[in-house]
Amino acid sequence: MQLEFLGTGSGQPSKFRNVTSIALRLLDERNAVWLFDVGEATQHQILKTTIRPRKVEKIFISHLHGDHIFGLPGFLSSRSFQGADKNEPLTIYGPKGIKDFVQTALRVSETRLSYPINYVALQEGIIFDDPTFQVIAAPMRHRIETWGFRVVEKDHPGELLVDKLRAENIPSGPIYGRLKAGKTVTLADGRTINGLDFIGETQKGRVVTLILDTRPNDNIALLAHHADVLVHESTYGASDEESKMARAHAHSTSINAANVAKKAQVGKLVLTHLSARYVGPLVKNLIQDVRKVFPNTYVARDLDVIEIPFKKEIHESK
Amino acid sequence: MQLEFLGTGSGQPSKFRNVTSIALRLLDERNAVWLFDVGEATQHQILKTTIRPRKVEKIFISHLHGDHIFGLPGFLSSRSFQGADKNEPLTIYGPKGIKDFVQTALRVSETRLSYPINYVALQEGIIFDDPTFQVIAAPMRHRIETWGFRVVEKDHPGELLVDKLRAENIPSGPIYGRLKAGKTVTLADGRTINGLDFIGETQKGRVVTLILDTRPNDNIALLAHHADVLVHESTYGASDEESKMARAHAHSTSINAANVAKKAQVGKLVLTHLSARYVGPLVKNLIQDVRKVFPNTYVARDLDVIEIPFKKEIHESK
Ligand SMILES: [Zn+2]
Ligand SMILES: [Zn+2]
Repeated sequence: MQLEFLGTGSGQPSKFRNVTSIALRLLDERNAVWLFDVGEATQHQILKTTIRPRKVEKIFISHLHGDHIFGLPGFLSSRSFQGADKNEPLTIYGPKGIKDFVQTALRVSETRLSYPINYVALQEGIIFDDPTFQVIAAPMRHRIETWGFRVVEKDHPGELLVDKLRAENIPSGPIYGRLKAGKTVTLADGRTINGLDFIGETQKGRVVTLILDTRPNDNIALLAHHADVLVHESTYGASDEESKMARAHAHSTSINAANVAKKAQVGKLVLTHLSARYVGPLVKNLIQDVRKVFPNTYVARDLDVIEIPFKKEIHESK
Repeated sequence: MQLEFLGTGSGQPSKFRNVTSIALRLLDERNAVWLFDVGEATQHQILKTTIRPRKVEKIFISHLHGDHIFGLPGFLSSRSFQGADKNEPLTIYGPKGIKDFVQTALRVSETRLSYPINYVALQEGIIFDDPTFQVIAAPMRHRIETWGFRVVEKDHPGELLVDKLRAENIPSGPIYGRLKAGKTVTLADGRTINGLDFIGETQKGRVVTLILDTRPNDNIALLAHHADVLVHESTYGASDEESKMARAHAHSTSINAANVAKKAQVGKLVLTHLSARYVGPLVKNLIQDVRKVFPNTYVARDLDVIEIPFKKEIHESK
């Protein structure tokens, strides 16, 4: 489970930062990749990665500003061209207008995709749920309908501790299945064994929260509560003047992001959606300022890959 | 007057060739740039050039396939963001659907441009004409409505030969204006002077023809007749198998392009819209084969700039 930042800039592309797209790599977890926003030239950025478009199973669109969606028609076309077949559907979650945009682009260009698209109009609450993942959306406050996302990996049940069973001379066989299910079993030699004593620690699932364009609002901390990683927009810096700009344009500052990371007690904060002028020393200054509020902060660059590890405390709590 | 190739690939972007866009740089001639097709990430390519988006005055769209238009909404937005003002309108010439595509993208993304766009639906014949340039469109044969373009620079009237006038002791003053207009003038010393004897050669205007996606058809030679430069698509190579593919997909081969260049007696042939596999030795082979049919052939690479010089013969014909 990794985040791969395909574009970390705001508004328009610059030499070092493309417009927004973030890949959540779930290859080990579900042999799939999810995209959050698809700014123009996302498919060009993907060419520089190991991501295969046909593996992209879901696309989440935070809002319909051009720098978050104009790469969608091209990406969808190339996914088709590269051989995604009719059994590899794609689901697009976004504000209602996304369907209108995509369908107009495909109709006008007479593009016939090789696979079906399902459109899901975003609503507050659980927007996706299966045995391995759940995604929750909540409204943000931007100049246009905008959504934040909380991606929750379901807990991994503990493994059966086979070595421990063997050490106690408990013979393998169908009873291992019953022990793994946590049942109590009586052995041929008369011993009574409680399965729960032979199951490892439950591995807590990971949580990633993605907050793209928005001004500060109460839903952010709710979505980010105890998240392993919070990805947060940081269109403006910490100065008074930039704070004013952020308010005027319904965006956040780096300090807004740090404050909510602290409040929500997240594991790591990753800033993205930065102005093109944040290169070199300006990034260093930005990080220094933000770390005074929330030490474990990182500023994403294009093509950065950030591993999301299982919580260490959990591993060690046995 | 130069052609700058912003994207020379076909279908989808690859590492070395972006999808189609060609800039005709008319900075000396009219302080403007014209674009022919705007594939995805054209604005990203422009970042690598000296072209300023607000200088782009006209956009010509050959057809509505995605690899020729998906960069348009992003380019238009950035042109606005970069400060084009309401006195810097942009005209888009293209098949009728282009307006639907652009307007849907701008509406859904709530983009309000700082400048007006005029849409001109393409028709056969002269689509633009002013004192310095004329553009002629003719239908091509592709899988969708497609147009080829002939850009004609008007002739530059000859300069007044001031050195020659001075050598003959003809005093400067208002009579220079009458001489430049080709009139006959009587001097104070009684001499009669014919202005036509003191005007340099008319500088013949240049002609550039742009043929994007199409199968071979009779209109190509008409548009390309004696053009200084013919830009022609070359989606497929010379082999029998590729020729079949070209026919099946309504495209041209490199040899089709060379044949029409020869027939139309153009000055130079520039191939573009190449498959991603044309890199390295394959390009060399392609050029060798094509030059057997039309020697002055060139294969465009992304960001190539090709100068379009005035015809030499005209300069020397005096
Ligand atoms: Zn936005
Ligand atoms: Zn085409």
